[in-house]
Amino acid sequence: MDELAVDTVADPTLDDPVVIEGLPGVGHVGSLAADHLLEELDEQTTLVRRIYSHAFPPQVSVEGGVASLTCTEVHAISPDDARDMLVFTGDHQAQHAEGHYVLADAYLDVAEEFGVSEVFALGGVPTGELIEEYAVVGAVTDESMIEPLEDAGVEFREDEPAGGIVGISGLLLGLGARRGIDATCLMGETSGYLVDPKSARAVLDVLETVLGFDVDYDSLDERADELEDVIGKIQEMEAQGGMDLPSDDDLRYIG
Amino acid sequence: MDELAVDTVADPTLDDPVVIEGLPGVGHVGSLAADHLLEELDEQTTLVRRIYSHAFPPQVSVEGGVASLTCTEVHAISPDDARDMLVFTGDHQAQHAEGHYVLADAYLDVAEEFGVSEVFALGGVPTGELIEEYAVVGAVTDESMIEPLEDAGVEFREDEPAGGIVGISGLLLGLGARRGIDATCLMGETSGYLVDPKSARAVLDVLETVLGFDVDYDSLDERADELEDVIGKIQEMEAQGGMDLPSDDDLRYIG
Amino acid sequence: MDELAVDTVADPTLDDPVVIEGLPGVGHVGSLAADHLLEELDEQTTLVRRIYSHAFPPQVSVEGGVASLTCTEVHAISPDDARDMLVFTGDHQAQHAEGHYVLADAYLDVAEEFGVSEVFALGGVPTGELIEEYAVVGAVTDESMIEPLEDAGVEFREDEPAGGIVGISGLLLGLGARRGIDATCLMGETSGYLVDPKSARAVLDVLETVLGFDVDYDSLDERADELEDVIGKIQEMEAQGGMDLPSDDDLRYIG
Amino acid sequence: MDELAVDTVADPTLDDPVVIEGLPGVGHVGSLAADHLLEELDEQTTLVRRIYSHAFPPQVSVEGGVASLTCTEVHAISPDDARDMLVFTGDHQAQHAEGHYVLADAYLDVAEEFGVSEVFALGGVPTGELIEEYAVVGAVTDESMIEPLEDAGVEFREDEPAGGIVGISGLLLGLGARRGIDATCLMGETSGYLVDPKSARAVLDVLETVLGFDVDYDSLDERADELEDVIGKIQEMEAQGGMDLPSDDDLRYIG
Repeated sequence: MDELAVDTVADPTLDDPVVIEGLPGVGHVGSLAADHLLEELDEQTTLVRRIYSHAFPPQVSVEGGVASLTCTEVHAISPDDARDMLVFTGDHQAQHAEGHYVLADAYLDVAEEFGVSEVFALGGVPTGELIEEYAVVGAVTDESMIEPLEDAGVEFREDEPAGGIVGISGLLLGLGARRGIDATCLMGETSGYLVDPKSARAVLDVLETVLGFDVDYDSLDERADELEDVIGKIQEMEAQGGMDLPSDDDLRYIG
Repeated sequence: MDELAVDTVADPTLDDPVVIEGLPGVGHVGSLAADHLLEELDEQTTLVRRIYSHAFPPQVSVEGGVASLTCTEVHAISPDDARDMLVFTGDHQAQHAEGHYVLADAYLDVAEEFGVSEVFALGGVPTGELIEEYAVVGAVTDESMIEPLEDAGVEFREDEPAGGIVGISGLLLGLGARRGIDATCLMGETSGYLVDPKSARAVLDVLETVLGFDVDYDSLDERADELEDVIGKIQEMEAQGGMDLPSDDDLRYIG
Repeated sequence: MDELAVDTVADPTLDDPVVIEGLPGVGHVGSLAADHLLEELDEQTTLVRRIYSHAFPPQVSVEGGVASLTCTEVHAISPDDARDMLVFTGDHQAQHAEGHYVLADAYLDVAEEFGVSEVFALGGVPTGELIEEYAVVGAVTDESMIEPLEDAGVEFREDEPAGGIVGISGLLLGLGARRGIDATCLMGETSGYLVDPKSARAVLDVLETVLGFDVDYDSLDERADELEDVIGKIQEMEAQGGMDLPSDDDLRYIG
Repeated sequence: MDELAVDTVADPTLDDPVVIEGLPGVGHVGSLAADHLLEELDEQTTLVRRIYSHAFPPQVSVEGGVASLTCTEVHAISPDDARDMLVFTGDHQAQHAEGHYVLADAYLDVAEEFGVSEVFALGGVPTGELIEEYAVVGAVTDESMIEPLEDAGVEFREDEPAGGIVGISGLLLGLGARRGIDATCLMGETSGYLVDPKSARAVLDVLETVLGFDVDYDSLDERADELEDVIGKIQEMEAQGGMDLPSDDDLRYIG
């Protein structure tokens, strides 16, 4: 296998599609959101590409005894009443800086093959505390893109995210801009400690407004409720003094 | 030396050989098993390739004052009454992710030179506790391969190994599948704390059933008995309260 | 994007320009000094190049909602009454050794496009204690360059800096010398614990003498005063026994 | 600069020279020994090559204010009454595994330009305790080389060094053998805690016997005596209970 290998699984014609990137990251917000889209719209969904790379961990996942090499999967979704989408998901981001650059360019190459001129990178922005109101913070490649997104409920803040955007979502904006592609990063606020379906829901609400698709959120809300129960029990135990607040490390594995 | 160098030592003609990979890993299960095959069948064994790589540690081993550069050795075994084998062993796996990919492809290239269409990657799967019954867990490149392996005693479990298979064994499956090679990973259950000859024996029992070779296990069983003695003494000391259970780090060096 | 990409933003003709390098480093001395030059001489300043590289972190910075890919910016300054300058600034140095070499050569390539034959790399040299008198220590590519710099107040010391000069500043000297470019490193003494505008001022004082430009230091002095206040309060609290001296880690984030 | 750059400083004709490698390593034994040769035979010594590489740290050293880019220096020594030598010294080994391979091959390329067919890699082997009798342990590329070296006082031991030989010395043997060059590693026993001139002396004693040169050891012995004084004082303080034995980290910086 070359350092980078893009396998074509199908090659449907898409109508002015947008890219949705939902690789793993803070609170798994982006991957929860993208996976939810794929599940809810699975009848309009086709797997079109698998992208393999030496920058991924040297690893197979195993399901029911059958091994699959780590890759990024690209699905095309053609909803009946909304814009076509090209959704990038997978279990891993690149393992090193150079790999992020190479993969971001590979993703954009695939996007351009399908005629994409607009990219939405989904992710989470950590706040360090449990969230009551799930705001969605935005970053864009051009100032003119801000106003319509604000109308859809996205917040743009002077100095956030403070450390910039690291990883594939950041590079889709940085390298997208160099190609003249309009790219937006939608970051759901999340504690940073938990897998966060509520934050994913907030991001999807924005995306739904922008792109016009229509999906059911029951399964995502259910998952959020289950998580609430877990958090509630933890807080109760803490209130009774029977347990210290879980450390960040503990929380990281809840959900 | 180029980044990768494959030295031809001998070039025998083999009859429909299978690859056996036994590089170091969890519990040294794979390397114990492969080395045992080479020792027991040494009269039918020929060293055919040495594979050097910049991805290996920059190191020579020294035996009796003579230095040898770190490499993977490939031996051909032609047993009288069983399928030919091509056995990959050595002191090291690659030191980084990209090296794993490059070496896995190099191994598969050598395999294809000899007409191989089937690969067995041997290893251990850590359970975190001492093992009573040594099960062998399997993973394959195609669902159709599961049934005959189950008949040979291999267990296929819904979600195991949970973290997938990392390193050369995983990639032989992942990259093998991309070449149309049937690859199987046989993972002996092992505590993960000890070099584990019993787990290696369990893996060889399966392999013997599948490939039909016939080897003696006395030396492997002896080594297992010695290890049992060590563990017994540790447990005794612990029972007398004279010593804490050895930590993982202590156990890692027993055997 | 290639591993290295140099975007031309403007291409003014410069008259015998010198390079000023002020990338982040010890006490942010070099970047404070270079940024101050750009601010004070902004009417004579033009952005001429952006240098992108896979050796930078995979990251965008976000200002007012708009993302910019990590890069080194090159500004040309043509002061009315002093030598032209080519100023290299940015948020990041390379993330690994090889990247430092590649970027240093890229910077020197840009410098040579503009006819540069002289380079000043600005930085700090850590002393481990708070500084009273801000000396500027020098290193050059040729012994003949020492005397005129000593006349401008630069100190050359037998064995300093003891560990040599690491990173981009060091390589501009090392690789500059190989191209026949006269390169000087001006290192302001600094505690190493704090962002240090006073040390940056000391470095600029030397540079002003050598290159003849004329800038106002009010904003830099103000920033230094604010920092003095913070340090004063810390020392007071310590004197009252109410607080331990801040550790290195604490101090690192002051300023 | 390319990833690797070999600058020719002089090109004398040498008569059947041997390589002496003395890069930094355990106890600085190899570099002390090689530097001592260069100092004592400096009138017969010529700098012939400088080898630069992206695998070295991105760094200049500074002496008397003048910066020099990190490199390996190659000196030719033509003693009146002994074999010519090509001595490799410098402040750094490569910073990563691949760099070690690339540099070892570069050194061997230079060696072959000068017609070298024999290499001596000098180093230390750590024993973990202070040494009384300084044995020199050997490793070679071919068994036939052992006997003459044993006659010169080198010890060959069944399983030493246990972990093999890591870094440039190991690779000069490993890659030298692949080119048909006879390579020997001479490892002076040393505690591993201290810069060790006595161990360097032991290695040079062997080398003197093998190659027939004749050098004075006063400066090396003096340095050893100074070190003995320091160790003596430490042991005295410890005997008086006034001080704990210095930790490994303390000792690492003595000398």
